[in-house]
Amino acid sequence: MTIFYKNKPVLSETFTIAGPKEAEGPLKKYIHRKEKDDMFNEESFEKAECKFLKTALKSCIEKAALNENDIDCVIAGDLLNQIISSSFAARELNIPFLGVYNACSTMTEAYLLAGVLVDGSYMNKVLCGTSSHFSSAERQYRYPLELGSTRPPLSQWTVTGAGAGLITSSGKGPYLYAATVGKVVDYGVKDVNNMGPAMAPAAVDTLIRHLKGTCSKSSDYDLIVTGDLGAFGSRIFKDLAWEKGIDVSANHVDCGEMVFNINEKEFQGGSGAGCSAVVFNSYIYGKLLKKTLKRVLFMATGALLSTVSSQQGESIPSICHAVEFRGE
Amino acid sequence: MTIFYKNKPVLSETFTIAGPKEAEGPLKKYIHRKEKDDMFNEESFEKAECKFLKTALKSCIEKAALNENDIDCVIAGDLLNQIISSSFAARELNIPFLGVYNACSTMTEAYLLAGVLVDGSYMNKVLCGTSSHFSSAERQYRYPLELGSTRPPLSQWTVTGAGAGLITSSGKGPYLYAATVGKVVDYGVKDVNNMGPAMAPAAVDTLIRHLKGTCSKSSDYDLIVTGDLGAFGSRIFKDLAWEKGIDVSANHVDCGEMVFNINEKEFQGGSGAGCSAVVFNSYIYGKLLKKTLKRVLFMATGALLSTVSSQQGESIPSICHAVEFRGE
Repeated sequence: MTIFYKNKPVLSETFTIAGPKEAEGPLKKYIHRKEKDDMFNEESFEKAECKFLKTALKSCIEKAALNENDIDCVIAGDLLNQIISSSFAARELNIPFLGVYNACSTMTEAYLLAGVLVDGSYMNKVLCGTSSHFSSAERQYRYPLELGSTRPPLSQWTVTGAGAGLITSSGKGPYLYAATVGKVVDYGVKDVNNMGPAMAPAAVDTLIRHLKGTCSKSSDYDLIVTGDLGAFGSRIFKDLAWEKGIDVSANHVDCGEMVFNINEKEFQGGSGAGCSAVVFNSYIYGKLLKKTLKRVLFMATGALLSTVSSQQGESIPSICHAVEFRGE
Repeated sequence: MTIFYKNKPVLSETFTIAGPKEAEGPLKKYIHRKEKDDMFNEESFEKAECKFLKTALKSCIEKAALNENDIDCVIAGDLLNQIISSSFAARELNIPFLGVYNACSTMTEAYLLAGVLVDGSYMNKVLCGTSSHFSSAERQYRYPLELGSTRPPLSQWTVTGAGAGLITSSGKGPYLYAATVGKVVDYGVKDVNNMGPAMAPAAVDTLIRHLKGTCSKSSDYDLIVTGDLGAFGSRIFKDLAWEKGIDVSANHVDCGEMVFNINEKEFQGGSGAGCSAVVFNSYIYGKLLKKTLKRVLFMATGALLSTVSSQQGESIPSICHAVEFRGE
């Protein structure tokens, strides 16, 4: 079931912040704030991640020339257990808070729900945000960094950073046209160091349903942006779509492929909830604002595993929520 | 900012399932399905919890004489890291899925959002659910059960069970009248074995804002139902409300206080996302259906900590979302 926004809720402001590695990448000109130290003057990786998210949320409010009391609700989520980055960031804001979690598809989940709250006149201004941090993710999901584990070639590098976006009932900027809530798709991939192939089928499923729901062709879009499939996952996405008769070869990009310089260490590119949050809300939002891009399908993808589910032999269920932005 | 539902979205069906300890409690007549074995024929506590939630969701669909294709969306969340009970339950359903997380306030968060999606005509039927499991919660948040740790006197006992509810655009049953999104409130409580006092101030904050937003007095409600403050937290809630000029002594109940027989072992009563989900969707929903209760404020409360945040010396930020149900 496709959600159609009737009253054109606007993505009227965004803010992105990222760490030193991201700041050296191709998007360095576009990321709003770059930190030289990924610890961000905090004493733990987790507190640093929280500060990245808090800074993105607060800076987005300031950039919009608003204050906290003007914002009706914050919708946020992140990869840490019990989404503590988001909850502790929300503690610093005197704004009602809805916590959401669909792994790295959280950014589009937040935009989808914020769009509904604003479009239906339940609220006027809803702030969305997500974050991730390489070091907090490594030690929670994989190994302590001190162990110096070798990274396998199909792995991705979690983005250190956060992105925020403000959905408002009026204002200038691209508006939300339609959205599709993802289904959980699981093709049985169990390799936690190779999540692109686990997530690609979910992205294709959502793409098919969104195109059908909006009576669109893939070529109608200036850009179809996936979240963090990475280089290999992105190829699988294109191939699976092609098998279903959808050609996205000319207008598909993946945030994970765009965020870092291409070198050996990152292998398949970036990942993490912060990946699509940083890339979409900086570079791609800028193009939508300038109307270089007029119709963009933003499809952040998430792998819904935990260390416990993997240790108990489970495969990696995945999801992808799509939000269609249009510039006028 | 209070959300008003304009088109009376209906809580048209619910289903609850719980383990043997809950089945011996005062609500045994009302819980729809009781399992004798809290492992539910699964090989791990986590898989058992997932099966409780999956069973609640599927049984709710069946009880409403619908099938999966009739449901537009599932909104669910739980206490396990990366909400795996919800994600893996959603994997078994061919229904779009939105994952939410605000700890034990997840049930009201889900109802609040489902109400908006249905009320605004974006969807027709949205299924909500949450779960918790004593054994999976103990080993994730506290100690392995095998250790036989002594439970401190202010601790609560996590409910093993799940509750589901179906919000529809038409049908019979109590309807959603209004809702208030909670703010994160933190009074500095750090004792993870005493969460009622951490959550009580969040409940009072939301109560004040909901009463103000709806121009109501506390005495207008037949029942003000908190989630899992427990016996001690519940007293603090009453005291704090009293200090603010609100008397809830006559019409306040707490799901955590209601779910178990009173004996020494559980100390302050039940807790967990499944606690309010089981109590509200069985006993209280039944009273709303029969119109013994006509106006109920359901305020599930959540403690937004993780083991990592506590180990890093953080206090326990809390939240409470309120949804007002009315019977006609």
